[in-house]
Parts: sequence; C-alpha cells; structure tokens
Amino acid sequence: MMKEINFFLAALLCAVFGFTACQQTPQHADNKPDMQQRPAYAIAIHGGAGTLSRAIMTPEKEAAYRTALDSALLIGETVLKNGGTSLDAVEKTIVFLEDCPLFNAGRGAVFTHEGKNELDASIMDGSNQKAGAVGGVSIIKNPIRLARAVMDKSPHVMLVGRGAEQFALENQIDTIDPKWFFTEERWQTLQEMLAEEKKNGKTGSLDPALRDYKFGTVGCVALDNQGHLAAGTSTGGMTNKRWNRLGDSPVIGAGTYASDDACAVSCTGHGEFFIRYAVAHDVWALMSYKGLSLAEAAEFVVNKKLVEKGAEGGLIAVDKAGNISLPFNSEGMYRGYAKPGERKVLIYKE
Amino acid sequence: MMKEINFFLAALLCAVFGFTACQQTPQHADNKPDMQQRPAYAIAIHGGAGTLSRAIMTPEKEAAYRTALDSALLIGETVLKNGGTSLDAVEKTIVFLEDCPLFNAGRGAVFTHEGKNELDASIMDGSNQKAGAVGGVSIIKNPIRLARAVMDKSPHVMLVGRGAEQFALENQIDTIDPKWFFTEERWQTLQEMLAEEKKNGKTGSLDPALRDYKFGTVGCVALDNQGHLAAGTSTGGMTNKRWNRLGDSPVIGAGTYASDDACAVSCTGHGEFFIRYAVAHDVWALMSYKGLSLAEAAEFVVNKKLVEKGAEGGLIAVDKAGNISLPFNSEGMYRGYAKPGERKVLIYKE
Repeated sequence: MMKEINFFLAALLCAVFGFTACQQTPQHADNKPDMQQRPAYAIAIHGGAGTLSRAIMTPEKEAAYRTALDSALLIGETVLKNGGTSLDAVEKTIVFLEDCPLFNAGRGAVFTHEGKNELDASIMDGSNQKAGAVGGVSIIKNPIRLARAVMDKSPHVMLVGRGAEQFALENQIDTIDPKWFFTEERWQTLQEMLAEEKKNGKTGSLDPALRDYKFGTVGCVALDNQGHLAAGTSTGGMTNKRWNRLGDSPVIGAGTYASDDACAVSCTGHGEFFIRYAVAHDVWALMSYKGLSLAEAAEFVVNKKLVEKGAEGGLIAVDKAGNISLPFNSEGMYRGYAKPGERKVLIYKE
Repeated sequence: MMKEINFFLAALLCAVFGFTACQQTPQHADNKPDMQQRPAYAIAIHGGAGTLSRAIMTPEKEAAYRTALDSALLIGETVLKNGGTSLDAVEKTIVFLEDCPLFNAGRGAVFTHEGKNELDASIMDGSNQKAGAVGGVSIIKNPIRLARAVMDKSPHVMLVGRGAEQFALENQIDTIDPKWFFTEERWQTLQEMLAEEKKNGKTGSLDPALRDYKFGTVGCVALDNQGHLAAGTSTGGMTNKRWNRLGDSPVIGAGTYASDDACAVSCTGHGEFFIRYAVAHDVWALMSYKGLSLAEAAEFVVNKKLVEKGAEGGLIAVDKAGNISLPFNSEGMYRGYAKPGERKVLIYKE
C-alpha cells in the first residue's frame, strides 16, 4: 500500500515540477517565429527499456509513469513551440526526467555495489556536431546540464569523476548532497541483489521478474523549427555496478549521436553492447552511407543486429524531416513522442 | 648535448626491451602453423601524429624514433609469424611502446595540469567485437594490459579512474609507483605551457614549433593467419589536460575499432574531434555500408572529412585482406607496417 502511495506522490511531484518548468520563459525568445505559422517540430523521449514485467506493474504505477512521460514531453514541446532550440528542448526535458524519482537517472539513479550513485550523461548538437559528456559524477544534481556545460564551456568532450565535478564547481553547475539520490526502492533493489550475490557467490542478476529497470536510462531527441537536431541521454547506470564502470550513455557514438544531415539518436539498453556496436552512430551511418530511411536504419540495428548479438534495449530517433522511430527489442520501453497536433506516451508493444 | 644522450639511451633501452620481448615464447604455440607455409599477416603501428616539426628534430632523435618503431614492429611481427593471435600481437606491441619513454603513452606519458600522469587505453577483438577500455588511470604500468583484462575478465567494456585501478589490483595487473611516469622532457613541456598560460591568462597551447607531441598516442592494428583482426590504442592524453578529461583513445568507436568483416583501426590526433565524428567506426561504416576500399575509407575520413572540420591527426588501419592504410593530415605521424617480406618505418610524408 505504501508503495502505491509513494508512486502517487512521485507522479504528483513530477507533474508539479513539469507545470512549473513549462511556465518558464523560453531562453531563445529572439528566435520566436510568427505564431500564426505553426512551427514544425518533433520530439521523442525514453525512460529506459527492459523487462518492465507486466506482472509487477500495478495500474497506479503505470499511471504514474504515463503522467511523468507526458509532463516531460510537454516541457520539450513547449520549448519547441515557442521557437526554442532542439538543444534546449533536449536539456530541459532530460532535467525533468532526472528530477523525477521514477526513472534511473539523476534523483532516481540506481546504486553501485558500494551503495553510491554514479551518474553519466551526454548531449550532442546536430547543427555543429559539438558534444559534451560526463561519467561517474556523484554530486551533480542534473548531469545533463553538466554535459552541456562541458560542450559549451570547455575545449573537451568527455570529463569524468572528480575532475568533472571540479569543472562543475568552476562553472556554476548545481551540486548537491549525494543523499538527494537516495530512494528507498532503488536501495532495496541493491540489497536484494547483494543478498543474491552472497548466496550464489557471484555477481547478482536477480530474478527477471524483479529486474525492472536493469537498463534504466532517460533520453530525448528533438528537431526544432530551424531544422536543427539534438540528442541527449542520462543514467544512473546498472544496479550493483563496480569499478567506476561507464556504459554507453556518456559515450558519444554509442548512447548518443546527432547530426543535422541525418538524425538524432538516444539509446537505452545493455550498454556494453551499445558501445561495441557504436549503436547511435551506426543508425546515422546506415542512413548516410546506405541510404536507409530512419525507420529502416533504427529497426535494423535494434531488431536485427542487436537481437542477433543477444543485446537487449532500444532507442529513440528523429530525422531531419521530423520522422520518429522508437524501436526496442525488450518487453517494454518507457517512451513518448510529440509533433504538432500529436502527443503519445507508450510503455509496452502497443 | 644532454638531450641527445638521453635520446640515445632511450633508443638503446627500447631496443634492449624489444629484443628481450622477442625472445619470449609465443603464448599460442598450439596455433603454430606449418612453418613451410608462410603465414599471412599484416601489422601497422603508430606513435602519434602532430607537428613533429623538422626544425626541432635532430638526426639522433629521428634515429631513436625509427629504432623504437622498428623494434615495436618486430615484436608484433614475431607473434604473428609464430601463429599468435592479432590480439596478442597488438597487446605486446603496445606494451613495448608504452614502456618506451619516447612516446606519449605509459612510461612517456605527458603531464596533466596538476602535474600528474593519467593514462587511457582501449583494445578490440575483431573476431567477436569484444572490447575493453580504461580511462584516467595513474598507477597502471601498462594500461593496454588492463584494457585487455577488462575485456577478458569483466562483464564491462569501460572502467575509469580508481575503480579501474581497483579492478587491476583484483586481477593481478601490474601496478607501479606513479614516479615511473616521470620524464624530464614531458615535465619541462608542462612547465613551459604553464608559464605561457600564466603570461597569457588562458589555457596554454605553446608555439607550434614546441608543440611536438600534442597529439601523442600509440596504437597497433593487426591481421593474423586465422583472418582475425584486432586494434588497440594507448595514450597519456594532452599535456596540461584538466578535469579528468578523456580523449578518443579509450572510446571504442572513436579511437579504436575492429571487426573481422571489414577492418581494424587505431587513431591519433585531436581527440575531441575523433569522438565527435566517431572516426574509427566511421572508417568501418564507409567500408561496410558504402562499399569503399580500406584506403578510400581511411583517406576520406582523415584527408577530407577531418580536414574540413579543422581536425588534425591520422590513423592506421588494416583490412581483412591484409591491406594497410596509414593516412594523416598533420606534418608527420610516427608509423610503420610489416607484412611477409616487407617492413617499413616512416615519420614524415615520404
């Protein structure tokens, strides 16, 4: 019963955050187009892929996720409708998803083997292919903001650990007491995994029915009315991860890629496979070099190549024409998309 | 005068190491082919690309580099001639280059802004596309060995910082006092850069004539007599780097990529650009999806795409047929290659 109430509270919290965020004046008001002419835009989000077993999904829990995803879309859509950039839409949408404890990123990050939270994120601007990424940060409230600061304010692409946190301090990026990332549900998942590990004498991987969120991640891709694409991804990684492991989320080309000449992509899944097959860049390459459509490229990578390799996960992608593709090969993927006059949130294969 | 003597000593040291390494029994003697039938193999190496200004290159210095590169090739070639795997050839060759103080990797790593040495490396097995990478390690004698251990002994691809070092300790990978990485020449380069930074009030980038090795890296790609490809890269990164910056060397898809179906690639250059354009994977994609030859793909990426983006550097690549390509768009690239009956070491455009 307490769990249901917690989910209601989380959903309410996310909705309030969402409403507040939408009230903010867009940062790029000077780009504001004539409102008589409806701006063309497209946005898609994900909140992780995995087993998301229907068996452990209550109607209340499902409603909470749907509300949060819808609020996230609304935030990004509002930026884009007001003539904001795809980059701002991606950043703001992900900030909301990071602040929402339902998702494995920011506030709701899973725990490492040592009971810490180590966060990764990356962002890429399709208009100039600049990118920023951070890995293994523990005191950054919104890792996606830090990734953007790395892109905008440093000569580098990828900063990790303490160094990345030092850069955050030097650039007025919000830091926070690591306790912020403590959520009871994630803590219990770690405890169950550690108990199983102790019992079996090896790295725990839990009963699949309990593995909800093993590949939790959040991501956003967007096309703005200037024709610019952007992509971003943020995660707490895998529960029980060790040795400062980085997955695909902070790796440009693996978890995130964007180029105005083709598409913007954000991935979620078994990160090691996504690195080995440079999944986000692969979708771009299939479009650029083989002439596949966005849907063909994304489907091929997720539902043929990765399936053959035994890799679970999915991705969201948008192309320069505003087409959207959201393929996944797991039981479900928290996802949604919006275009002028159309907004949809999905969890399972529907 | 002291500098010349130092270089002679370094070359002598490298040659002795090389000779010793070549005396070791290959680990895969059971794969040893009939010696009557000459095994097909191909190997290429690089020791970094950059200005390598002829103005500051003495004949003694050049001879030292040539000797070291030749010794490195000999090590890899010996593994391959004896029926060893491309993966072993890549690892052993890079271990030698890491131990040689002439190159910016391992022993000869450059210094960070704080006067530390932070090393990165990655390796990829083309036969199964498994990969391992480490970033920002400070007590690992041979980062390429740790990258291989991550690939072989962990469920992960990428480990960074202290966590990666902890994994090394748990897996009997040699650690060493960080003083091992102190070399007078690299230390002086940092001091000069810091002095210039202090004078100009911004991040130093030195007179180009002094920037020798700004993009120092070592790498190796190989094809063995079983038709398997492998690639590896190792570096100390950029002099004066801050905030635990990672370049392309530990990023699979950017600095390193290998797949038996097409090619193996190792890059060296301005790492941020190599990440943003997923350079190593891009060469693979141009061959796989656009049907380009190895030379066409490698040349296109390095001498057209990267040049247009203002990105300095180069790469070494070998394909499944044993073709080798070594393009670079900087003044020079320390490099070499060997095939049955052929071994060559080069520095400038020759």
